[in-house]
Amino acid sequence: MHAGRHAGREMVGFDVDRSAAAAASASGFPVAPTDAAAVHGADLVVLAMPLPQLRDALRSVRPHLSPQTIVTDVGTLKRPVLAAVRELLPDTRFVGGHPLAGTEESGWHAADPLLFRDAPWTLTLEDDTDLDAWLTVAERLCDLGAKPVPATADDQDRAVARVIGLPHVLAEVLALTGLFGGPLGLSLAAGSYRSGSRVARTRPDLVATWCDGNQALVEALDDVLARLSGARDALAAGGSVLDLAAAGHRARMDWEHRRFEPVELPADREGLRAHGRRGGWITAVLRDEDEIRLLGMRPLE
Amino acid sequence: MHAGRHAGREMVGFDVDRSAAAAASASGFPVAPTDAAAVHGADLVVLAMPLPQLRDALRSVRPHLSPQTIVTDVGTLKRPVLAAVRELLPDTRFVGGHPLAGTEESGWHAADPLLFRDAPWTLTLEDDTDLDAWLTVAERLCDLGAKPVPATADDQDRAVARVIGLPHVLAEVLALTGLFGGPLGLSLAAGSYRSGSRVARTRPDLVATWCDGNQALVEALDDVLARLSGARDALAAGGSVLDLAAAGHRARMDWEHRRFEPVELPADREGLRAHGRRGGWITAVLRDEDEIRLLGMRPLE
Repeated sequence: MHAGRHAGREMVGFDVDRSAAAAASASGFPVAPTDAAAVHGADLVVLAMPLPQLRDALRSVRPHLSPQTIVTDVGTLKRPVLAAVRELLPDTRFVGGHPLAGTEESGWHAADPLLFRDAPWTLTLEDDTDLDAWLTVAERLCDLGAKPVPATADDQDRAVARVIGLPHVLAEVLALTGLFGGPLGLSLAAGSYRSGSRVARTRPDLVATWCDGNQALVEALDDVLARLSGARDALAAGGSVLDLAAAGHRARMDWEHRRFEPVELPADREGLRAHGRRGGWITAVLRDEDEIRLLGMRPLE
Repeated sequence: MHAGRHAGREMVGFDVDRSAAAAASASGFPVAPTDAAAVHGADLVVLAMPLPQLRDALRSVRPHLSPQTIVTDVGTLKRPVLAAVRELLPDTRFVGGHPLAGTEESGWHAADPLLFRDAPWTLTLEDDTDLDAWLTVAERLCDLGAKPVPATADDQDRAVARVIGLPHVLAEVLALTGLFGGPLGLSLAAGSYRSGSRVARTRPDLVATWCDGNQALVEALDDVLARLSGARDALAAGGSVLDLAAAGHRARMDWEHRRFEPVELPADREGLRAHGRRGGWITAVLRDEDEIRLLGMRPLE
């Protein structure tokens, strides 16, 4: 809500958590008494709740959506969201969204109007996605300073397994195993333990909803297990972790030093999905009478 | 050097890297032309080099140390350092040190006079350590605002396997595996990938010297492999990572919320080592004529 209002949009909120709703209201944000009232007459409805609560929310708002309303969400995994929407809101103009932003904090006090600036934000683009609705949501995200990334739910969930699920699972394991050696380790734990286990501060039920049911995470964990076993065996045999460290260092530095170039994009489904798969995103949706021009950035080869 | 001068000490430096020595000199720090000149007449010699260069350095300074000189170091693993010192400087008053501070940056430009404030700093206390030398080094560290932790080299290296070696190995594996899914993942990688792989920015040869030869890291990796396999199998069978996430979250939050109480300590070897093993550190070494009073902090049970 902060970010939307900061971008000049009229926002109406609703939260099942009455204390969060009261905090928003006390900060001067309009809060509707029911979810039905919040979505009534809206151009764009943003659903934001943990996955286990999604289906109830879809049932609850369904009777109050107009045919023109665009519905989006902010869930981490997009395949289960898409399945629920296809079942419960089959005729709705839905575009799944996933902002890659946030902190390990939750609640109204953690809100930040600039949270999404420069944040990648997946927008699902399936064969049955309304392209005009997709472009409208992308335009709104550009207004927030975010970077809309076109992707199918399949592709995004596979990527998320490695860059969200895996970092969280590894942080939980480190948080636990790092301190398993007793109180001396508790006092020696410093920078590398602190940053490596930072996201273990996240609510565990949220971590579970970002991981559970994503089979691509099983593959990612198999890769990790193979690499860790290799490092373990090398150490046990008096060898070195140098090869692993050199490869990890290179991957991280290459990622930091990626460079991009601006590009004009076709406003068609296949072209947009290919752009996302290559690591590109949208920077502007320009509407000039009937014509739409799309600008983006893509990695330099 | 920054920290020492900030604490009011007269410091003389030497660096085999001439550009680092020139940078220090240009910042107004006295730099000796040879290591022999740097250690000549010093009360306290601080050796700071990667482990593979240590033995050469010990041979080089050996003829220039006076019997009263105390020698310490800042290496991550203490058992190999102690072995080298016992062989090459058997009659020197040596206290092994390991500051748990630093960033993933290297070089003179990364120096910070407040780097060691509140940083745990292991000081090895073996049966053959000169207790008076140990107390002198501890006193200097308290002047820097650091937290001297008494420990045997064995105990410290076991703890370091879990809170330094393990976080680095996991960061390297995440840096590499997280991005293995292609360019889409590169653009979706955000906060959790960034913090989880932060220490993969460290020079890989340094990471190797912190890990290689530490058998306790093999045990720590076995623990990690067992936990990760468990999570992998649960996911593959349609289960949840919730138990792991809940345990990791609890460990991390308990660590953050530890509380401590002040304590007066005996200036004896066994008492100090027990204090360190329980997660305590030294806050002050007070010398009053012949009497020494030691103050510290210890975790509340």
